[in-house]
Amino acid sequence: MNFTSDNITGASPEILAALIAANSGHAASYGADPWTSRVEAQLAGLFGRAVEIFPVTTGTAANALCCAAICPPWGAVITHQESHVIDDECGAPEFFMGGAKLIGLPGVGGKLTPETIEAHFAAEPGGTRRAPIKGISIAQGTEFGQVYSVAELKALTAKAREHGLFVHMDGARFWNALVSLKCDAAEMTWASGVDILSLGGTKNGCLLAEAVVIFNPALSEDFRFKRKRSGQTLSKQRLISAQFEALLTNRHWEGLAAHANAQAEKLASGLKKSGLTLGWDRQINEVFPIMPMALITHLKAQGAQFHDWSEISLPPDRKVGEGEVIARLVTSFLTEDREVDQFVALSRDFLSQR
Amino acid sequence: MNFTSDNITGASPEILAALIAANSGHAASYGADPWTSRVEAQLAGLFGRAVEIFPVTTGTAANALCCAAICPPWGAVITHQESHVIDDECGAPEFFMGGAKLIGLPGVGGKLTPETIEAHFAAEPGGTRRAPIKGISIAQGTEFGQVYSVAELKALTAKAREHGLFVHMDGARFWNALVSLKCDAAEMTWASGVDILSLGGTKNGCLLAEAVVIFNPALSEDFRFKRKRSGQTLSKQRLISAQFEALLTNRHWEGLAAHANAQAEKLASGLKKSGLTLGWDRQINEVFPIMPMALITHLKAQGAQFHDWSEISLPPDRKVGEGEVIARLVTSFLTEDREVDQFVALSRDFLSQR
Amino acid sequence: MNFTSDNITGASPEILAALIAANSGHAASYGADPWTSRVEAQLAGLFGRAVEIFPVTTGTAANALCCAAICPPWGAVITHQESHVIDDECGAPEFFMGGAKLIGLPGVGGKLTPETIEAHFAAEPGGTRRAPIKGISIAQGTEFGQVYSVAELKALTAKAREHGLFVHMDGARFWNALVSLKCDAAEMTWASGVDILSLGGTKNGCLLAEAVVIFNPALSEDFRFKRKRSGQTLSKQRLISAQFEALLTNRHWEGLAAHANAQAEKLASGLKKSGLTLGWDRQINEVFPIMPMALITHLKAQGAQFHDWSEISLPPDRKVGEGEVIARLVTSFLTEDREVDQFVALSRDFLSQR
Amino acid sequence: MNFTSDNITGASPEILAALIAANSGHAASYGADPWTSRVEAQLAGLFGRAVEIFPVTTGTAANALCCAAICPPWGAVITHQESHVIDDECGAPEFFMGGAKLIGLPGVGGKLTPETIEAHFAAEPGGTRRAPIKGISIAQGTEFGQVYSVAELKALTAKAREHGLFVHMDGARFWNALVSLKCDAAEMTWASGVDILSLGGTKNGCLLAEAVVIFNPALSEDFRFKRKRSGQTLSKQRLISAQFEALLTNRHWEGLAAHANAQAEKLASGLKKSGLTLGWDRQINEVFPIMPMALITHLKAQGAQFHDWSEISLPPDRKVGEGEVIARLVTSFLTEDREVDQFVALSRDFLSQR
Repeated sequence: MNFTSDNITGASPEILAALIAANSGHAASYGADPWTSRVEAQLAGLFGRAVEIFPVTTGTAANALCCAAICPPWGAVITHQESHVIDDECGAPEFFMGGAKLIGLPGVGGKLTPETIEAHFAAEPGGTRRAPIKGISIAQGTEFGQVYSVAELKALTAKAREHGLFVHMDGARFWNALVSLKCDAAEMTWASGVDILSLGGTKNGCLLAEAVVIFNPALSEDFRFKRKRSGQTLSKQRLISAQFEALLTNRHWEGLAAHANAQAEKLASGLKKSGLTLGWDRQINEVFPIMPMALITHLKAQGAQFHDWSEISLPPDRKVGEGEVIARLVTSFLTEDREVDQFVALSRDFLSQR
Repeated sequence: MNFTSDNITGASPEILAALIAANSGHAASYGADPWTSRVEAQLAGLFGRAVEIFPVTTGTAANALCCAAICPPWGAVITHQESHVIDDECGAPEFFMGGAKLIGLPGVGGKLTPETIEAHFAAEPGGTRRAPIKGISIAQGTEFGQVYSVAELKALTAKAREHGLFVHMDGARFWNALVSLKCDAAEMTWASGVDILSLGGTKNGCLLAEAVVIFNPALSEDFRFKRKRSGQTLSKQRLISAQFEALLTNRHWEGLAAHANAQAEKLASGLKKSGLTLGWDRQINEVFPIMPMALITHLKAQGAQFHDWSEISLPPDRKVGEGEVIARLVTSFLTEDREVDQFVALSRDFLSQR
Repeated sequence: MNFTSDNITGASPEILAALIAANSGHAASYGADPWTSRVEAQLAGLFGRAVEIFPVTTGTAANALCCAAICPPWGAVITHQESHVIDDECGAPEFFMGGAKLIGLPGVGGKLTPETIEAHFAAEPGGTRRAPIKGISIAQGTEFGQVYSVAELKALTAKAREHGLFVHMDGARFWNALVSLKCDAAEMTWASGVDILSLGGTKNGCLLAEAVVIFNPALSEDFRFKRKRSGQTLSKQRLISAQFEALLTNRHWEGLAAHANAQAEKLASGLKKSGLTLGWDRQINEVFPIMPMALITHLKAQGAQFHDWSEISLPPDRKVGEGEVIARLVTSFLTEDREVDQFVALSRDFLSQR
Repeated sequence: MNFTSDNITGASPEILAALIAANSGHAASYGADPWTSRVEAQLAGLFGRAVEIFPVTTGTAANALCCAAICPPWGAVITHQESHVIDDECGAPEFFMGGAKLIGLPGVGGKLTPETIEAHFAAEPGGTRRAPIKGISIAQGTEFGQVYSVAELKALTAKAREHGLFVHMDGARFWNALVSLKCDAAEMTWASGVDILSLGGTKNGCLLAEAVVIFNPALSEDFRFKRKRSGQTLSKQRLISAQFEALLTNRHWEGLAAHANAQAEKLASGLKKSGLTLGWDRQINEVFPIMPMALITHLKAQGAQFHDWSEISLPPDRKVGEGEVIARLVTSFLTEDREVDQFVALSRDFLSQR
């Protein structure tokens, strides 16, 4: 019952097989290999248009490079006050941006809204006292497992455009969000105003495969130099590309993400039936039950592993009571029925005996 | 006959097997896994003392992080004028250091000497016009395939210490140098005054495995934060550690590096017998024959692949004549006798017919 | 009736005279001049101990250099959420720190408290997700004209020390605060745990004279290089030092600051008598009346100049009602009775007629 | 006989008077003052077109801001290997650029040439190993007192344009160069392809007045934010602008610079008559005689003050013999005949007695 994260697994068998196959023989280094070319073609298919792709090794690097693409050192990027970029990357975005600021705005479920952005601009003093805002960085899904609808994305990016801002999407759990929205990859990205995307692979069945995907050509100038100087240009890049190739072949990503999402849904509905409230509705592969401390202690004693979570971005109608905590449960392509069932049963039994 | 680099191969079978084995099941993320612990123990054995190890994904990242560990943003690091850090990493060291300077000094074969360092300090004007020098960065082996002897290392680091400088060793080809010197890993590093090491795995049979190894505890403070903010803290770190584990088990590194070095020696002696002069004597897995342009054209037409190289750091007794070029031939753990023999034969035949 | 700021004046006659006197003849450049030496001696007298002083040209540069002295690029500095360093310097601290973060915490009147700092540390997740906190930056007086008492300073810096943090004091209005507290300069700084100070001159009668004063020798290493590389090492430094010399001679600073504070007090008591509430009690040379919009319009129509101010950091017992705004009125060494009297009279008359 | 630099004086009487006049009364802060507006108009007149001007406090800040305007953090700027920006500013350009590289090329008299730039590009390897070159930074006059002719400037900037590079001119001694060339300010700058200029005042009679002048509007976007975040936006900016106003009024700059140049010429011809050779011909207010060490010792014993200088950039026909050193003598608007005559006489007498 390890629900700590979706980065505790290895690769899916298909992806591992692709990596093994790519291992043999020689190939040109630094991206001039056929795997990388094939992934470019696959992504062009997925997104319905040519894109530029830059494989990197961590989500932090992808996000930080994207922030640096949309914002110069003297600028600022608006993000949610509890976003991963502002809270969990040890200042990597600020480092890659060369000292630019991340401005954290509040929002239910980790989402930015046109209203909060507008309010922020309305309160800006003008002059040169504040660093000029150059972009927004949103996560699809958010740190609270929430997914922007296509309509929400369009409204948000329209507001960004109104203020001349570029839009970055942190897609560490891109595939889970895409499966959840049941929409087209284009619709969830460039066709809804996203300029640049951190495309995650590691959390959806890859070993170590992340990428920056650039939709807006204004952001691609010199990007290869920016990647190189950040230590993210791999000599054996084919080994990352091969993972993406396998992930994209026959929509392998879909099966992996759908499994993770379905296991999360099973957890969510099981826990709700047991009487628990969720901090945020289940949308991707994360479930956030509000639990009595005693239950948490009990579950951990039985071998369940998971983290606590913050309550700052709860919807107004959800409360964490005295002696309660929000738990975060993350499922993956590898989460088994057995684990989910056991976790739900333990919770149900514990709660029914109180 | 692909002698372009030692980063064009995949992993050795042993290392690939280790990676596959490490792929199954769950493991704690971000380095809290048993593979990483085991590698720490193995390296402690190799170096004869406890060391701190920080796996990363590229040699550029390792070097840039090491430079940043030995030099603050307002300082400077002395390196060879044609070193990899100054010439081939697109400014990554300067970026990671926060704007500090790399100062390139001349030296035969890519080596710094106590004399060039002393001369540089003697010419410094004092005051605050120049950024204060904080460290030196050397490569073992150098961009010209040269290896510092233990005596040379000790003399150089003593000079560095005299000026209060930290010492970084770029060990992208660490194992080839170690096999060449036939000495102890301790002797080639901390016991000779090296404070911090970029330890390469990728060029000696790994897929993608580099690490920063810290000998001087004064440099380890906050290093984990520096790595994290540079996007080099891997969620699935066990997959890097597993490669190092296999590389270190039963001195697997030795067989791989010895093979590469031996193939280079075969190339070197074959080419010398054919009448060619080497720019620098063969010491590791790189050979630098000075070739007539016509021979280069001929070899490439026959399918040989390799790069040209710079002549700035030649010894005074070696000259590149009119119509000649220095070639760089790199061998690897995968270089076959067949390739070497063919290359030598083609050269010999061509030269004998002139 | 110009109450927009205390930086709209020129220099006091004494300081201008000193500048004129220093203008003649030759003097060694870059700080090796007798004026600078004399100021060092004067400050040693003022603070009751030797200090290091680095004249610079703007308060922004002084603050940013101080932040960079207490925090490395990978760290973070806690400050008030509406402090000048976080809100009004266009990212200069982040730039000078090399990308480190400013973390803004709430607090009445712009003050940090041991409690908010403790609460922040209690909520930190550990690991490497967050940049390590290295220092705190406080302003004496704050953006809301508030002054930390010596007891408050001691409690705050004790808490900082408990967490291993350095303490920076932004003293843009240092002299006004010192006059307000009626204490010793030592007591308000190093003897209360302050490590480094931005000492303002420009707002208290100088043309252009700011300085970094270092109390903690751990922060002075390499500081001269940090200043130089930030473009703040003046060739004709004597011209800054001469201003400080005049400011410090015969406690000239005291008369200037006392006048500004007294004019502010006159404004404050006059406006209170007229029925207005102050957002924060008057402590230095700033007054913050909560005014009906109509009054503000009226005053501006009569030629009064001043800015609006934020209400986020109000004490819980002060409210800005519907149709009301907080005004900020700043007095200086040059503010005349006439201006104050006219402003108070206009307010009183307007309010009595409603 | 103080020939150490042209920054050891105070202000000229006219400029001091202007500063005193500007000191009285209130004025809007941060550049919204009438002095600044008037200087803009004066510079538009001088340059024959509208320009943007940003007053700052040091030449280092002006140069570093200009470098940051022409080059992003991931780029590189070509400059002379002994230029002030690369050698004497303690890494300020690298800091302001956010870690970009300065590439130093050789050149007689401190000048870049189209040939050295072309040769550098010809040797670049392509790919992403090297930071992309974005600009060149030249000094008018150079560190060796040399002035680019208009023809030289045009050829150089044409070569820069060919490679897509912006052109920065370090004009710390702009006025001396302008007087020397006897050309129009337009011809020496934008009409010859200069995009951005560091315009010095401090070395030509000001107290402390430098400015960035932008000719190419592509470089002015966001520049006010860049200046602000570097701590160079002065609250009492009128005090800098007033100095420039006085410098520009009635071509006051011309008299000051012409005096300094003439005194240098007197020194130069006197020393040549005494039998000394100049390292570089006298063009501005600097003279570089090659002197026997014994003469240097003698002159210093007699109270003369000056610095030694580097011989790396000598013309091929000038040599520093055994026991000789290059001296640098700098004159200023304040240099008196008496000083020059005494220095020449001492040299002549000493040399004639050998």
